[in-house]
Parts: sequence; C-alpha cells; structure tokens
Amino acid sequence: MRGAIIYAPGDVRVEQREDPKISEPTDAVIRLAATCVCGSDLWSWRGIDPVIAPHPIGHEYVGVVEEVGRDVRIIKPGQFVVGSFFASDNTCEICLAGYQSRCAHAELIGANGAQAEYLRVPLADGTLVATSRQPGADLIPSLLAASDVLGTGWFGAAAAEVRPGKTVAVVGDGAVGLLAVLAARHFGAARIIAMSRHEPRQQLALEFGATDIVTERGDEAVARVKEMTGGYGAHSVIEAVGTQESMMQAIRSTRAGGHVGYLGVAHGVQLPGEELFYAEVHLLGGPAPVRRFLPDLIRLIEDRVIDPGKVFDLTLPLDEAAEGYRAMDERRAIKTLLIP
Amino acid sequence: MRGAIIYAPGDVRVEQREDPKISEPTDAVIRLAATCVCGSDLWSWRGIDPVIAPHPIGHEYVGVVEEVGRDVRIIKPGQFVVGSFFASDNTCEICLAGYQSRCAHAELIGANGAQAEYLRVPLADGTLVATSRQPGADLIPSLLAASDVLGTGWFGAAAAEVRPGKTVAVVGDGAVGLLAVLAARHFGAARIIAMSRHEPRQQLALEFGATDIVTERGDEAVARVKEMTGGYGAHSVIEAVGTQESMMQAIRSTRAGGHVGYLGVAHGVQLPGEELFYAEVHLLGGPAPVRRFLPDLIRLIEDRVIDPGKVFDLTLPLDEAAEGYRAMDERRAIKTLLIP
Repeated sequence: MRGAIIYAPGDVRVEQREDPKISEPTDAVIRLAATCVCGSDLWSWRGIDPVIAPHPIGHEYVGVVEEVGRDVRIIKPGQFVVGSFFASDNTCEICLAGYQSRCAHAELIGANGAQAEYLRVPLADGTLVATSRQPGADLIPSLLAASDVLGTGWFGAAAAEVRPGKTVAVVGDGAVGLLAVLAARHFGAARIIAMSRHEPRQQLALEFGATDIVTERGDEAVARVKEMTGGYGAHSVIEAVGTQESMMQAIRSTRAGGHVGYLGVAHGVQLPGEELFYAEVHLLGGPAPVRRFLPDLIRLIEDRVIDPGKVFDLTLPLDEAAEGYRAMDERRAIKTLLIP
Repeated sequence: MRGAIIYAPGDVRVEQREDPKISEPTDAVIRLAATCVCGSDLWSWRGIDPVIAPHPIGHEYVGVVEEVGRDVRIIKPGQFVVGSFFASDNTCEICLAGYQSRCAHAELIGANGAQAEYLRVPLADGTLVATSRQPGADLIPSLLAASDVLGTGWFGAAAAEVRPGKTVAVVGDGAVGLLAVLAARHFGAARIIAMSRHEPRQQLALEFGATDIVTERGDEAVARVKEMTGGYGAHSVIEAVGTQESMMQAIRSTRAGGHVGYLGVAHGVQLPGEELFYAEVHLLGGPAPVRRFLPDLIRLIEDRVIDPGKVFDLTLPLDEAAEGYRAMDERRAIKTLLIP
C-alpha cells in the first residue's frame, strides 16, 4: 500500500509500505476513506519534536473495516468506522470514567501511521465506533474531524466546564481551537471570544459561533478579556496551542474559580506554582478522550446538526501529503484532508 | 492591647500594639476568644518567606463582636463569630460562585495580625459568620479550626471531588492534611490513605477516619498508592504541603481523570507542562474559600458531629506565642492554640 513516512523535519514522503495485517486477535484492519494532517504532526515537521529515525505518521482516520481478529465481537467487516488517535479497551476503570486516551492498555495509533491506504487498529471493539449507515461523500470530512480535532475541541469545552449562559474564551485558531468554538456554542455558551489575528480563521470562528474576536496576544489579550467580563475574566477558557505563552494567557484570562481546558500538546511549558495557587482556577487537559464523545459526535454529524468538516480548506491526494504539511506550516491552510 | 509582631525569622514577640478601631463603615472589631499559629506562619518563622520589616502576624480567629461600622447590617455586637483569613464582600460574582478567598475586594486578615487581643475585620457582613449561641469553652478550639485549617481541609476534599465510595490520598500530615482526612471521611470516601511518618499524627489521622497509612515519600509513596489501587492511583488526592516534591507526589498518585486538590502555599513549585498533560488529572487549589463552608462547619461543630479542635495539641497564653511557633517548627506540636 501507499503510506507516509517522515524522514526528517520538512521531509515527508509517501511511498510503498507493507500492508497492515491482523497481529492481535483484538485488531481490525480498515481501508481508509480519508485521513489528514494534524497540528501536532507539525511539531515533527518543524523539528520541534525530534525525528530520531524515519517512521510512519498520521493518526486521524475514517474508513471501512476490511478484516477483524477472532476476538473482535462488536465491529464487523464492511462497517464504516471512526476511531480515536488512541486505541483503548473501553472496559478498564479509566475508560469507564471517560478517559479512554489514558486507558490502562492505550496504544498510540500514530505508531501505525494513518496517513496511508490501510490501517491496523488495535483493540477494535474499544476504539472504533460504526456510523449508522455508509455516509455520503459530503459527510466524510466531518466524520474525519471527529477522529481527533472535533473530539479534542469537544473535550476542551467539557474540561473547561462550558455551561449555558457562560462566557468562554478560546486561545488558538487552529482546527482544534475553531472546533472548540463550535463545541462551546453547542454547550450553550452565551459569549464566545475567539482569539485570532488571521482573517479567514476569524470568519470560520464566527461561522462556528464565536461572538467576539480578540486579535491581541499575551498580556494584552488577557487585559481585553478582563475588560469584556467586568474585570473578572472568562468563566471557561480553552487552550489549543501548547506553548508557555498560550498556557499563561489561558490561565490569566480565567476568573478565579473558573475552568481552563488545555488541549495543545505542551512544549517546554512550566507552570509557576505560586501564580497558579493564587489564580485558583480549575485545570484539566491532556490528550482528548475522543472515544467518550464519538457516539454523540457521529450522531450530530449524521443528523447535520454540526458541520466540523469546514476546517478542511485543502484537499490533496495522499501522494501529495508533503504539500499538505507545507501549506499548514505556512498557514496557507487550516487543515489538509488527504484522499488515499 | 497585646499582639504578636514578627521581627525576623525565629523572632516573634508579643508586645503592646495599638487597639484596632473601626476605620471603614463595613468593619467590625472583635475581642478574640482564641487565636493560633498556622503552618503558613512558619514560612516566615523559618525565613523561607522573607520578613522585610517587622509586622503583625496571625490570621485565625474567633471571638465576640465589640463594635461594628455604620454600614454593617448582619453582624451585631455581642455575637460570637468565626471568620476566614480573607475578608470578602460575599456579594461579587466570584464570591457568589463560592470563591470568597478571591473576592473582588478581598483583603488579607493577616495584615491586621490576629495573634492579638482584638482584631479589626474588614467587610464584616461578608466575612464573619455568627454561631447560633455563645459556645461553651470546649467548642472554642473546633470553631477556631474552622477559621482556617478545617475550612482549608474541607476545600481540599471539595476541590479533589471526594465522593462516596472513592479512594482518597492525603499528602501532608500537618493540621490541614489531618483535617482533610476528616473532610474526606465526612464526604463519604471509602478508603482514605494518610501519608505520614509521625506516629502521633498517624494516630490522629486514624481517629479522623484514615483507613491506611503510607510512610513512604516521593516516588516510593506513589508506588505504594498505585499498588493499593489496582495500579490506577487514587481517585482524589489532597496536597497539603506546598513543595515541589509534595505536588508531584500528589499528581503522580492520582489516576488519569482523577482530581488533585492542592492546599499548601506553593513555594518554588514549577509544574512540568508535558507531564501534567499526560497525567490528565484535574487540578484545583489555592487559598481556601473558607467562607463558603463556614455555615455548614459551624453547624457540624455545634451539633458535635465533628471535633476538628483535636488538632490543637498545645495551648499557650498569647504572650508565649514564640514558644508556640518553636514547638510547631520542631514538630513537637501539630498546632498551637493561643489564649489572649
């Protein structure tokens, strides 16, 4: 099959890779209908995460089940499925509490490389969720978004305890930040402040439900949010970048007693204990337990209540994956969909 | 009046200070029935917090209202009152959400120095809660505990989302840690792991409801908690120390999706963002909004449901405050009550 391999920063090649096979009795192999490039893949592309040896890449996927292992009971060949970027058994205490990304038997899908024609998915029954029917082509982008960025934005809104009538701020205007706006709207927030200085992303944020745009950054952005919230700060802030500046901006934009949901994979972040102590905000973040939300998200997409697929503003054949990375890195594209 | 002043690390003197007066129309002045030395006062005594200039000290207090300002409507002279270590208006949005320690008009009681005969309490109506009747002498220690250490332990259990049937670990065996055990028991925890290597404190922890004692520290303590919880970690962990080691021990002892309530005033703590991201635990801490809990705590004490006053294992006249500090610093006493 064809599949992407990252060789070094800025060097992603799609080449012939071995076809995946069932290796554990709980595995499934799926034929991908679509895959994509994640903001977190850019950490390697940019050389911020080191590429120690060439490896397959990609962790977002939807497609049709080709084959299942002998212990797979729920998922059937022929079903159209969506899965998370973490495989999870969905039966351990951590999964049952809704934190499937930290399942006792969690495995990173990225290790198998989802930017490819086929993908082996471990723990298929715990990881994959089937759609109610074969989706039309127009729903594929939204279902693919559910695999990571939508589920992650949803987790952000849940972690930040977004509630009807509340004021929410979102730090970061990548696909996750934009979909966190969508989630906040769905959760009933009265006011949603999107922090973005990029006009096309501002437009999409407004389309997804943002009520205000803040173009400042850092302490100036914090001052703007305070000014807009009677001096208190937002009730809920969703962080979707992963840098020191974005984390501090999120914490400082939150009122005492408020909630920060942080989604950006932390890079070089150190939280100062004393400031955190006196900020007195709730913090919850980490790799999103997308599996928790998938059944609801699939239903909302099939019922056309939400249209998260709009974050894909560039579609390329899988073989042109490198251009997809480049376009996102240069902020020419929000998110690149790849067709195998 | 007599009142304590800290001149330098290890140098607390009780001397003649000016009688406090009503200076704002929302003030009250109370005659203290009892006051005490807090673990957080030891940061200055030990020179970890610098003593830049001599200043009054102490922030825990119960007593009888002597006089109120002209805008005080609820609190009346003659009432026996308990207050928090932060004055709060109890009417701003932050207070109404239950975070009175971060009130828009919060003032630190410590600045007025509660280790004294009399104390000026700002924002009296928002800060003070009257008991239902004049308490007997035997209830004074428990009511005094409610002013800080009990309310702080209670906040720890609330912040760590202690729930019936859950497993809770408490890091720190000072008065706050011990009262966090009491709170966890009251909240219905099935298993309460107290981390302590001091025999008298272990005894009190068991009396307050601990089911297990762990004497290890740091990574060994984490390993013990994991071993006791099927490898997952505790559902809720309450941190009551404030050091890098205690914070990391608390975070690492918590299962993914679990909750850390942190109470120790952070000293030199830096939380590593990446570890926190993958730990995926809820964090909430800060100066406890004791005012939120005071009405309930006073009722529980008056009804003799709880007896938090047991944390006072040394009682001294106010004039011997320095010996009270010394005994706590040397861990000869858990907590020193001072009688003005």
